[in-house]
Amino acid sequence: MTFNSIGKNFSFTTWGESHGKAIGCVVDGVPSKIKLSEKDIQPYLDKRRPGQSKFTTQRKEKDQIKILSGVFQGYTTGHPISMIIFNKDQKSKDYSSIKNKFRPGHADYTYWLKYGIHDYRGGGRSSARETAMRVAAGAIARKVIHYKINKKFEIKGALIQIGNDKINYKLWNNKYIEKNEFFSPDKSIIPRWRKAINDARKNGSSLGAIIEIRCKGIPAGLGEPIYDKIEADLGKAIMSINAVKGFEVGDGFNSVLNFGEENVDEMRVKNGKPIFLSNHAGGIMGGITNGQELILRFCVKPTSSILKKRRTINKKMQNTYISTKGRHDPCVGIRAVPVGEAMVATTLADHCLRFL
Amino acid sequence: MTFNSIGKNFSFTTWGESHGKAIGCVVDGVPSKIKLSEKDIQPYLDKRRPGQSKFTTQRKEKDQIKILSGVFQGYTTGHPISMIIFNKDQKSKDYSSIKNKFRPGHADYTYWLKYGIHDYRGGGRSSARETAMRVAAGAIARKVIHYKINKKFEIKGALIQIGNDKINYKLWNNKYIEKNEFFSPDKSIIPRWRKAINDARKNGSSLGAIIEIRCKGIPAGLGEPIYDKIEADLGKAIMSINAVKGFEVGDGFNSVLNFGEENVDEMRVKNGKPIFLSNHAGGIMGGITNGQELILRFCVKPTSSILKKRRTINKKMQNTYISTKGRHDPCVGIRAVPVGEAMVATTLADHCLRFL
Amino acid sequence: MTFNSIGKNFSFTTWGESHGKAIGCVVDGVPSKIKLSEKDIQPYLDKRRPGQSKFTTQRKEKDQIKILSGVFQGYTTGHPISMIIFNKDQKSKDYSSIKNKFRPGHADYTYWLKYGIHDYRGGGRSSARETAMRVAAGAIARKVIHYKINKKFEIKGALIQIGNDKINYKLWNNKYIEKNEFFSPDKSIIPRWRKAINDARKNGSSLGAIIEIRCKGIPAGLGEPIYDKIEADLGKAIMSINAVKGFEVGDGFNSVLNFGEENVDEMRVKNGKPIFLSNHAGGIMGGITNGQELILRFCVKPTSSILKKRRTINKKMQNTYISTKGRHDPCVGIRAVPVGEAMVATTLADHCLRFL
Amino acid sequence: MTFNSIGKNFSFTTWGESHGKAIGCVVDGVPSKIKLSEKDIQPYLDKRRPGQSKFTTQRKEKDQIKILSGVFQGYTTGHPISMIIFNKDQKSKDYSSIKNKFRPGHADYTYWLKYGIHDYRGGGRSSARETAMRVAAGAIARKVIHYKINKKFEIKGALIQIGNDKINYKLWNNKYIEKNEFFSPDKSIIPRWRKAINDARKNGSSLGAIIEIRCKGIPAGLGEPIYDKIEADLGKAIMSINAVKGFEVGDGFNSVLNFGEENVDEMRVKNGKPIFLSNHAGGIMGGITNGQELILRFCVKPTSSILKKRRTINKKMQNTYISTKGRHDPCVGIRAVPVGEAMVATTLADHCLRFL
Repeated sequence: MTFNSIGKNFSFTTWGESHGKAIGCVVDGVPSKIKLSEKDIQPYLDKRRPGQSKFTTQRKEKDQIKILSGVFQGYTTGHPISMIIFNKDQKSKDYSSIKNKFRPGHADYTYWLKYGIHDYRGGGRSSARETAMRVAAGAIARKVIHYKINKKFEIKGALIQIGNDKINYKLWNNKYIEKNEFFSPDKSIIPRWRKAINDARKNGSSLGAIIEIRCKGIPAGLGEPIYDKIEADLGKAIMSINAVKGFEVGDGFNSVLNFGEENVDEMRVKNGKPIFLSNHAGGIMGGITNGQELILRFCVKPTSSILKKRRTINKKMQNTYISTKGRHDPCVGIRAVPVGEAMVATTLADHCLRFL
Repeated sequence: MTFNSIGKNFSFTTWGESHGKAIGCVVDGVPSKIKLSEKDIQPYLDKRRPGQSKFTTQRKEKDQIKILSGVFQGYTTGHPISMIIFNKDQKSKDYSSIKNKFRPGHADYTYWLKYGIHDYRGGGRSSARETAMRVAAGAIARKVIHYKINKKFEIKGALIQIGNDKINYKLWNNKYIEKNEFFSPDKSIIPRWRKAINDARKNGSSLGAIIEIRCKGIPAGLGEPIYDKIEADLGKAIMSINAVKGFEVGDGFNSVLNFGEENVDEMRVKNGKPIFLSNHAGGIMGGITNGQELILRFCVKPTSSILKKRRTINKKMQNTYISTKGRHDPCVGIRAVPVGEAMVATTLADHCLRFL
Repeated sequence: MTFNSIGKNFSFTTWGESHGKAIGCVVDGVPSKIKLSEKDIQPYLDKRRPGQSKFTTQRKEKDQIKILSGVFQGYTTGHPISMIIFNKDQKSKDYSSIKNKFRPGHADYTYWLKYGIHDYRGGGRSSARETAMRVAAGAIARKVIHYKINKKFEIKGALIQIGNDKINYKLWNNKYIEKNEFFSPDKSIIPRWRKAINDARKNGSSLGAIIEIRCKGIPAGLGEPIYDKIEADLGKAIMSINAVKGFEVGDGFNSVLNFGEENVDEMRVKNGKPIFLSNHAGGIMGGITNGQELILRFCVKPTSSILKKRRTINKKMQNTYISTKGRHDPCVGIRAVPVGEAMVATTLADHCLRFL
Repeated sequence: MTFNSIGKNFSFTTWGESHGKAIGCVVDGVPSKIKLSEKDIQPYLDKRRPGQSKFTTQRKEKDQIKILSGVFQGYTTGHPISMIIFNKDQKSKDYSSIKNKFRPGHADYTYWLKYGIHDYRGGGRSSARETAMRVAAGAIARKVIHYKINKKFEIKGALIQIGNDKINYKLWNNKYIEKNEFFSPDKSIIPRWRKAINDARKNGSSLGAIIEIRCKGIPAGLGEPIYDKIEADLGKAIMSINAVKGFEVGDGFNSVLNFGEENVDEMRVKNGKPIFLSNHAGGIMGGITNGQELILRFCVKPTSSILKKRRTINKKMQNTYISTKGRHDPCVGIRAVPVGEAMVATTLADHCLRFL
């Protein structure tokens, strides 16, 4: 019942509120003797950091990570790694006008019901600011996977759809992903997405998105047969990200459109080694990785923090209206890319440490 | 690392192989003083039971459940409830011709890699036979929810799509669901689904399906903010079911098509109580139930156990072909309805026991 | 919150009541490819079995163990191992006269308070009968330790004190332990213990005991620094045995009588390898095994099920008297020897599976 | 496998090394709406703080606690409470002369074996400095128990033995405990203990101690029948404290000296309520509290950090000698009193949150 922890062998616990003094996490289960410093972590945080382009929130946070424990003379010690980011640019005043109103689509109402107390400043604990620490934990998870499986592996997320506009899979270019503000693998879609987001912002609206994550170099054998199937643990990890409403692996919901004989991934032997002739399964069979590329997708709803006036109620049980004026992402799906990657990394690290 | 257990407060552990002596489960965390007998459990097993219509596997199992512990004089004692079903109709011979081949799309290959040993009879532990015990645990979970929240609640699953043929939501009839062999809420689709499944069977093929589950009467406040969000725990529970490749809550992947202002569920006060004007969120806000109907969906791929010949390899790393002749479901999605309901029930019972 | 489970990597769950249909357990986390059959387990159960000498309870139970899952063609599969013992010699009538009275020193009163329902037949779930399944799990744990550390190891328990009569350590003879009904390592004490127990039985009384367990061949490195120290996990495992009131490792409470310089175990290098010049620590430093013999002790109170009339109350809150006439052990400490060994074995197996 | 966490419902995770930047902990599971500030925590830390008298280590640490999250406007929010203490008086140089030697009786050797890396500065993670954060978590646990059981309760630890000199139980005075530097309940023993510790210090030696903890006002019903018995969880919590070698509840090891009829706590009805005529059981029956005073004891070995020269080896596997010159407690048992209280508090809070 550690509500703020995830993972069994590689596990981490996050803490902190959007407008509190700091946010942080404690990563446990990291093997000793892994080279680690803040420099291994900061680049992932920089990918997620707010205030980088006009397509994300204007809150300015350097998100500078500090390691407080678990590293000695540049190497992990096998003991818990505590990390902290001090909050800098909290503008709690932005929230004073709405502190007694429930923002529809947000956690305000359910937190208030459950806890009878609610830190209204930026959503308090429910803020996506918590995901910064997921990204920090994910950076360490990558080091663990690298150390344990001792070969090149890659976890790569990309944005494949904003609103109703989907990329052209044929134009997928892995190298292009890091070179645009959307993590799009398809260069041709950029102008259209820019316009869509600008329009949404002007209209005080927001847009949803779909993210696809692909992992290469992941060994066969990760995952446990029944309840800790790798897709079950990935599903939990991804569904726990703010605003995510759906998750799928391999062909996912589209697999329903296939006949059985189309959907199985046939096998052959090539150069003495087993190969698969397709990858409808997304690299998972019976809950266990099969050595193929691991493929998963998830969707992020359009954020509920919008300028457009909406009907809601307040704590006195009165009808009212709300217009959220804070600094918000018109499409949170963009910054969900590094967060999704991080949750995949931590889940895989957890399974890597089980028996490998 | 109890790989065969799920749940924190309401938890259960299953054991047993498809063609072993018996299958069983142990349910822990059930409060005392709940009236319970086999009669409360058997009807749910009967819904899932194989051999009931020509649209499911022809294996004949009565699936008669026995309670071995945890009940005294008709009431639960607060101690673990052990249940058992003895296997009757194992035809292990059916599998001898394929015992050295990996059935593509199945766990054969990954289990063999992971364990170096594989019970080929009916898939051993990877068989969907394990889900019978999920259904048994789910029946007890329903009693727990009933006992703890002390009011009418309902968990109702329905098949909404087979292959590419989806129901008409406007024709949804709750009462009709129990009256047809497909758990369809839409009477008009039955003839078409019958034909589709018959065709698939004749062609040695199989079909995928989508299931929708709706829960009424679930209280607000279930779920924990960060990693134990109710949708994360439901996602894990559902994704752990054999052959499931995708999961979504509320509008799910379709929420991406909405603008932010369309997607939020506005609130009003009616008769002094808060109401929502829509339910795009599927009854969940910030990881916590909001008192609205809980809605989720998942897809089941077309089963990989098909008669149609497929390319595969054997344990000697040789190319070969396979045609699975055992008794199989042409559309496992049908029997996934009671299994999905059960996993929702156990997850909700788990959260009901956290603090309510 | 799985109240009836213990262990993280090697874990087991027990179920069943003293006078129910059966008792059982499910062992999870066992690696595949370990040779295993009932013959590996039965001898340990036979050591614990009631009705073997006049110094233990006269209840006759063959305690014949059956494996129901997790073993295929004589080898473990990596899947849960379910075991069952059907109860044979329940004499529930023995308990009818006391069914409304609380036996002082027993769980009757606290179970009744906690659950509002109480299976009075032989103590129901609180009966030491549950420990049979600990012994079964312990037998599998020994196989796991053997398999993982791949060398000779030994877990050996002995009775070192009954009432106020303690063995002479100088007469300790490991081989003698298995050859007497008390698991005593000291032959000279047997006549005195026989008389003491016979006297206690005649007087309708009972006696306490102290058990010492020594483990050879356990590798260095088992245990985790902070909360999962090996002595903490052993302490929990041992303290969870019925009637145990104290636990210590190495010199235990007597270490308080030493000065610091006497109590440290000095080290030297011998033949290029580190050796210790003493073993006050009982083989544990900083929560981690150091490769020396692991030594621990625990005490078992005199059983509360005695013939001698005692004052108590009944469920109607009336004063009354009680005299427990069932078949009971005059010194439960004797049968606690194999149970203690089993709990040590399961704890060590759990830690062996963590990273070795 | 969260090695640095303990507890299920009320749980906490600690991090930090003796000579690192800071130490800290994250407490999870605390209900919302409990008044909490640093002022509720600091007094307990002050009790444990080093450098307070010449009978404890001379390291000067203010141990000033800061709350970083989980509290809003003076009340807990239901979210994780992160606390931090920045280290001030690390004198890592003290350790440079011994950095390649294994201090006998310490974790140096086993950590080095297990991790292949060892923070020699003050023992790194194995230092008793970690216990400061247990005390901080314990202070919050007390608030939780107070809030949940809504009545006066008391957890009171006392030192009852140093070396071979035990208090006179007849002179026990609860009020005196807080008024002396030893937490002794017996005023008459103080001069003797002072002399004993002074002598030990002069001799470069150290002394062991026994601590007794008594809890009043704890409700009946805490604890779970089988593996989470309250004495099992207390045992684990206490045995996880540095230097603890033994644990017992109620009469503990002395219960072996009683006959069964002496050892049971008889019951009567007084003013319509059940009372017990004695408390040999220490307030626990069948693993569950019975409403009587909870009594437990544990021993702390004489610290291994002593000035007296001892034989040991170094990392090059050479014989050498060691004399530990750092600032150390001649009797760590004294400062173990508030730590033991804290572990009892966190364990009871954990069980209080299970169902009450």
